[in-house]
Amino acid sequence: MTVAGTSNTAGAFDALMAHERTTFALGQVAGRLGWDQETMMPRGAADQRSEEMAAMESVLHARRTDPRIADWLEAVDTAALDDTGRAQLRHIRRNFDRARKLPADLAQELARLTSRAQGQWAEARAAEDVASFLPVLARIVALKREEAAALAAGGDPYDALLDDYEPGAKAADLEAMFTALRGPLVALRAACLAQPAPKGLTGLFDEAAQMQLTDKLARAFGYDFSIGRLDKAVHPFSSGSGRDVRITTRTNPVDPFNCFYSTIHEVGHACYEQGIDAAYALTPLGQGVSMGVHESQSRIYENQIGRSRAFTGWLYGQMRAAFGDFGIADEDAFYAAVNRLHNGFIRTEADEVQYNLHVLLRFDLERALIAGDLAVADLEAAWNDRFLADFGFAVDKPSHGCLQDVHWSVGLFGYFPTYSLGNVYAGCLHQAMRAALPGLDAQLAQGDTSGATGWLRETVQRHGGLYTPREVIARASGMAPSEAPLLAYLKDKFSALYAL
Amino acid sequence: MTVAGTSNTAGAFDALMAHERTTFALGQVAGRLGWDQETMMPRGAADQRSEEMAAMESVLHARRTDPRIADWLEAVDTAALDDTGRAQLRHIRRNFDRARKLPADLAQELARLTSRAQGQWAEARAAEDVASFLPVLARIVALKREEAAALAAGGDPYDALLDDYEPGAKAADLEAMFTALRGPLVALRAACLAQPAPKGLTGLFDEAAQMQLTDKLARAFGYDFSIGRLDKAVHPFSSGSGRDVRITTRTNPVDPFNCFYSTIHEVGHACYEQGIDAAYALTPLGQGVSMGVHESQSRIYENQIGRSRAFTGWLYGQMRAAFGDFGIADEDAFYAAVNRLHNGFIRTEADEVQYNLHVLLRFDLERALIAGDLAVADLEAAWNDRFLADFGFAVDKPSHGCLQDVHWSVGLFGYFPTYSLGNVYAGCLHQAMRAALPGLDAQLAQGDTSGATGWLRETVQRHGGLYTPREVIARASGMAPSEAPLLAYLKDKFSALYAL
Repeated sequence: MTVAGTSNTAGAFDALMAHERTTFALGQVAGRLGWDQETMMPRGAADQRSEEMAAMESVLHARRTDPRIADWLEAVDTAALDDTGRAQLRHIRRNFDRARKLPADLAQELARLTSRAQGQWAEARAAEDVASFLPVLARIVALKREEAAALAAGGDPYDALLDDYEPGAKAADLEAMFTALRGPLVALRAACLAQPAPKGLTGLFDEAAQMQLTDKLARAFGYDFSIGRLDKAVHPFSSGSGRDVRITTRTNPVDPFNCFYSTIHEVGHACYEQGIDAAYALTPLGQGVSMGVHESQSRIYENQIGRSRAFTGWLYGQMRAAFGDFGIADEDAFYAAVNRLHNGFIRTEADEVQYNLHVLLRFDLERALIAGDLAVADLEAAWNDRFLADFGFAVDKPSHGCLQDVHWSVGLFGYFPTYSLGNVYAGCLHQAMRAALPGLDAQLAQGDTSGATGWLRETVQRHGGLYTPREVIARASGMAPSEAPLLAYLKDKFSALYAL
Repeated sequence: MTVAGTSNTAGAFDALMAHERTTFALGQVAGRLGWDQETMMPRGAADQRSEEMAAMESVLHARRTDPRIADWLEAVDTAALDDTGRAQLRHIRRNFDRARKLPADLAQELARLTSRAQGQWAEARAAEDVASFLPVLARIVALKREEAAALAAGGDPYDALLDDYEPGAKAADLEAMFTALRGPLVALRAACLAQPAPKGLTGLFDEAAQMQLTDKLARAFGYDFSIGRLDKAVHPFSSGSGRDVRITTRTNPVDPFNCFYSTIHEVGHACYEQGIDAAYALTPLGQGVSMGVHESQSRIYENQIGRSRAFTGWLYGQMRAAFGDFGIADEDAFYAAVNRLHNGFIRTEADEVQYNLHVLLRFDLERALIAGDLAVADLEAAWNDRFLADFGFAVDKPSHGCLQDVHWSVGLFGYFPTYSLGNVYAGCLHQAMRAALPGLDAQLAQGDTSGATGWLRETVQRHGGLYTPREVIARASGMAPSEAPLLAYLKDKFSALYAL
C-alpha cells in the first residue's frame, strides 16, 4: 500500500481508504478464524487459536487507532466528496473515535476475561449453579461499566454500549417503543394460550433429509453458494462479508423446524451481506449497517416470509416429499403447527408473539446492571420476578432463566435490544413490501421468494452502510420506524390462527 | 504486547521473543487461509481472498522487517543465553537479514506476478502450449535472478535461493551428492525395467472405503487428529505448525495407492510439526527446520516404512478386508505391486528408484536458468534432451515434460533439490533406525509403526529448529549426511524385488 501525501484532499482520502481496505480485509480473516473455530478446528487447537486471535486483534487494534488516521481525517475536504465518500468518512470517523476512547489495557483485560468466562458460564449453566458464575459476571459488569464510561465521555453509559451494535440508537427511544409493545404482547400471548393448542410435530425426522431440505431452502431464499457455504455447528450463525459469507445450521431428529427456520434466519443475515453493492466490498460501507437492520433481514426472511401461510403451504409439500406422512393433515394444520405458541423458558425457541417479551426482560435488566441500579447478586431474583410477571409461570432452574444466554458472559451488553428493534424494523419493511408486491402470496405459495428478497435487496441490502440504520429503514418502508406495523401484523396473524 | 526496554539483555530478548510469537501466530493464520482456500473456500471468493492474503502478507512483512528487531538484536548479550535461546537468536537474525535484503517492491511484484502465473501455467499445461507460458516464465526468472542477487550480496545467487528452503546448503555440495546418485540410479532403473514387470492393480476401488482406510493409516502412523484433520483436496498437502496441523488427500477409483501413500507422505510432514517440543510453539524453533529435513520425514514414512515388505504385508490384509479380492494373490505379489517400476513421465507418480532422477533433472535446469546459462526459450528442448538421456524415451507432450510441475510458476527456484536431499537424509536415518530397532519388521508386520515413529520423534522431530538441518540429521543418524545409505538401501531392495 502506498500512503499518499496528506497535503491534498484526494491524497488523504485515498490513503485513508487504502488503510481501511487492508484493515477490513484483516477483519474478514479474523472473522473466518471464528468460523473455523466453530466448524472445522480440531479440539486440541483451542489454546493456540486463542493466541492467533489475540495476535489478529492486536494488529487490528493498532490499525484502528493508527494516529495517521487523525491526520488523514483532518486533511480531507469533506465538501469535495460525493455521498458515498461522505458516508465512508462518517464510519471511519466514528470507528476511530470509539477505538481511541477505549483504553487498550481495559480492552485487553476484557478480552482475556470474557474468553475464559464463556467456558465458566457453560459450566455454571450445566451445573445449574448461578453462584459459581456471579463473581465472574460481577467482574465483567464492572469492566463494561468502565468501558461505557470511557466511551460515553459524559453521555449515557448504556447508550455508549448500545451504539456499538446500533449506531445512533438511544435507550430512551427504545424503551418507549418496547413499552408500547409489552402490554399488547403480554395480552396477545395470554389470549392465544387460553385457546386450544394446535397439534405440533411428533416423531422422528431423518437428519440427512433435513440437511437436504435446508440446503434447498437456503437456495430458495437466494443464498448464493458460489460465495458461501453451509456447514453444521453447535449454534447457527452467519459469518463474513462481501464475497465469502458462510452460514451454519444444526439438526435435531425431533425438531426439523429448528433446522429449517434457523437456516432461513441465517440466510437472511447472509443475504444482507451478499447483497451489498460490490463496490463497497472491504470498506466501512461493505457490511450490514447495524445489528438491528441485520436482524430485520433475518427476521423478515424467517417470520413474515418463512412463517407466512403462503410459504408454509409450499414447505408442507416439501416436507411431505422428504419425510412422507408425518401426522399433519393439511396445509392449514401445518401453518398452525409452525406458528404454535407454547409455554417455554427459552428465548431462542420462542414464537413470534413471545420472542420480544424475552428480549425486553433482558434489556431492562442489563440497563439496570450497567446503571448500577441492580447488583449482580440480585440478578437471578430480578430475572425470575420479571419472568413470572410477563409469562405467568415460574422459572424452574437457572439454565431456563438467567444462565440461558451466552451474551453477558462474553461482554455483550447493549446487544439484546437490537433483536427486538430488528423485529420492529421487519414490521415496517413488511408493511411496505406487501404494498409494493400485491402478488407476493401467489409467489410464496410456489416457494418463490425472489419477489420478496429482490425487494429487500433493492431497498435495504444493497446500501450496506451508506445510510444510518434509521434512514435505511425509513427510506425502504416510507415511514419513521415504529412498533405499530409489527403489532398490527402480530395481532392479525395470531387472532386468525387462534380464532380470537 | 509490552515492549521491554532494550538496555539490558533479558529485556531485549523477551521483547524480541514476544514480537516473534505474535509474528508466528499471524503466520499460522495466513497458512490456515491457504488451507481454507484449497479445501473449504467457495469458488467465487477467490478475488477477495487474494486481497485478504495480500493484507496478511503486508502485515507479516512489516513485522519481519520491523527496525526494532535490529535494536533488540544488538542489545542481546548472546553469551548469557542458553542453547535454546541462542538457537532462537540464530533464526531471528537470519530471518531478519533475509527479510531486509529483499526490496519490498520486488517482493510485491513477484507476489502479484506469481499469483497470476499459477493460473496461466495451468491453462498452458491444459492446452499443451509451452509458448504461451514462456513470456510469463521469463519474467519470473528475471525477477528471481534479481531476488537472488539481492539476497546473495556477492555470493552465489542460486545458493541464496536454495537457502530459503534449506538453510546453509550449497548447490556445489548437493551437486556432488546428486552426481554420485545419478549414474547408479540410471543403471538400477534400466536393470529393473529389463526384467518382467510385476502385476499392478486393476479394477475399481470404492472411494469411501479408500477414505476409511486412509484415515486408519494416518492413525497407524501416529497422526494426532485431536490437533489435526484430514480433508480431500485437489493436491495432497500438510499445513500448519504446533497444535493445528491439517492434511489433505485425494482419491482415484483406479489408484488407491495414490491415496494411501500420499496420505502417509503428508502424515510424515504433519507428524514432524506435531512432534516438535511444545515449548517451542509459535517461535522460530517451533517448525520444521528445513524442507530437506521435512522431506526426510515424509519420505521415510512413505517409503522406508510404508513401502517395506513388513508393512505392506499388513496393508495387504487391510486392503483385502476393505475391498475383497482385488486380484493380487498374496503379500509378496502385493509388495511387488506397491514397488513396481514403470516408464513414466511424471515426478509425483515415480517410484523410489526413478523419483530422484526427475528431481536431479530439475535441479540442473533451474540452476542454469538462474545462472543465466540457459534461456527460458531453450528450456523445453533442454528438458526433453535430458529426459531422453536419463529415461531412454522421449517426452511426448509438455504436460509430461517441462509444464508438469507448478513450482516455477509460483517462483519456487531452489526448492526441487530439497526433495532429493530429503531422500538422502531419509536413507541415513533409516540405516540408524534399523540398527537401533532390531525388532522393527515384526512391529511393522502388525501395522505397528510406533517404534519407528517414536524413534524419529525422539531423534529428529522434537528438536524443531534447535539444530541446523545437517546437525539434526547427523546427530540422529550418527554420521555425516551422505547418499551412500540411500543407494545401498535402493540397490538391496530393488535387486531382491527384481531378482537382479
